[in-house]
Amino acid sequence: MKKKIKKINAAILIIGNEILSGRTQDKNIIFLTNWLNTKCGISVNEARIIPDIEKTIMKNILILSKKFNYVFTTGGIGPTHDDITAQSISKAFKVKYEYHKEAYSILEKYYGKKKFNDGRKKMAKMPKGAKLIYNPSSAAPGFIIKNVLSLPGVPSILNSMIENCKVYLTKGAKIHSKTLNLYTVESNISKRLGEIQKKYNKFVEVGSYPFFRLGKIGVAIVTRSTSQKKLKNVNHELLKLVKLKKIKILKL
Amino acid sequence: MKKKIKKINAAILIIGNEILSGRTQDKNIIFLTNWLNTKCGISVNEARIIPDIEKTIMKNILILSKKFNYVFTTGGIGPTHDDITAQSISKAFKVKYEYHKEAYSILEKYYGKKKFNDGRKKMAKMPKGAKLIYNPSSAAPGFIIKNVLSLPGVPSILNSMIENCKVYLTKGAKIHSKTLNLYTVESNISKRLGEIQKKYNKFVEVGSYPFFRLGKIGVAIVTRSTSQKKLKNVNHELLKLVKLKKIKILKL
Repeated sequence: MKKKIKKINAAILIIGNEILSGRTQDKNIIFLTNWLNTKCGISVNEARIIPDIEKTIMKNILILSKKFNYVFTTGGIGPTHDDITAQSISKAFKVKYEYHKEAYSILEKYYGKKKFNDGRKKMAKMPKGAKLIYNPSSAAPGFIIKNVLSLPGVPSILNSMIENCKVYLTKGAKIHSKTLNLYTVESNISKRLGEIQKKYNKFVEVGSYPFFRLGKIGVAIVTRSTSQKKLKNVNHELLKLVKLKKIKILKL
Repeated sequence: MKKKIKKINAAILIIGNEILSGRTQDKNIIFLTNWLNTKCGISVNEARIIPDIEKTIMKNILILSKKFNYVFTTGGIGPTHDDITAQSISKAFKVKYEYHKEAYSILEKYYGKKKFNDGRKKMAKMPKGAKLIYNPSSAAPGFIIKNVLSLPGVPSILNSMIENCKVYLTKGAKIHSKTLNLYTVESNISKRLGEIQKKYNKFVEVGSYPFFRLGKIGVAIVTRSTSQKKLKNVNHELLKLVKLKKIKILKL
């Protein structure tokens, strides 16, 4: 990790028809957002799921890479015809789509010269100038070009590679979070909650999420901030509200 | 449902900081894509997850509603300060954000006059001209304005409301799908698979998805098409490939 800067953000771009057809439950967004938030102090400000269509990938890469500090793509870097992420990113950034020497030799070594067929060779093709994100579980590396990091779609493989992204990321200020689980309904506290959010608008994000637990209805109040002091102040005000309304707190 | 038209598409817009913070696993995308695909013949061509920020919601509503036949939003229609979907859509479409008479009376009846406080009343406020999507589980209705359908974020409530969307949707041609689970690796079949996809490019979508099952590696070949005949032809060619390569099929 490099020097500390206050606010760093990212977008996630999930590339794959299987998520949009309803065939597969996406698990990469929650994994990436959690990792980026807690391990890197990087907020995820947007996620998109798009099909395996070259023009669509190109357009989204250009839009998101301009708008956010980092873009994480998942999916489309395998050996089959529908794996077109690397070539689409090359086209978007107008750089050659070519064999990456180190990736080629990693894969050749992994499969052995005899079994290193065209499909497998394809996984060594990347945008010119890309740097590798090593893959400890199935060899085929991901890559970073400009501020775009490309990872595979299979969650277990992606998870195994994530720590190898760190070297390319600038860390943001740590995001602290507190959750208060209350046995009440949102509309019982919504007015005061709105006032508290307004007062601390710039510093603390106050979220309200209904839950159902063992037949009881409740609300989880989630506060998030880079300032531990401001977070403490907000939670002090929340506890005053809880006391005033005689609300029971659920301890987990 | 109204008359049959060939290709109808939709986008999903998930509105909620809790998904982007990594706190909550989204379950609405897979539910909606499945329902739209199988029950309505509507393809989902894009999904986005965005934070509870008015300008961001407005911008995305305008972009997606122009680009796709339907937009489904989830989240942000509850009673708290962070529920700003209805007012943001009103602003985006430049219509008044006001009490919907029927929604107001549904909610007043549900809570009783005494307990119908400001937070709860807020849930009756919608874009002027919106029509209701009834909610059998917790009363507060969703709504449709133009081609945008707004549903709540809590999956169990959303699921209970989904059939009430049908009356507003034009049905597309049924999308058929076949899955072939093969005990092989992608790179063993990727070349021929690419040729088959190229041959049927306009009619059939061929997807290739690695899986791990009881310690064995496999590939699921998923074919999708509105033409059952074309789907049959593609699967005939796939089975020829399977035979040629002596690949074992996993029967599920």
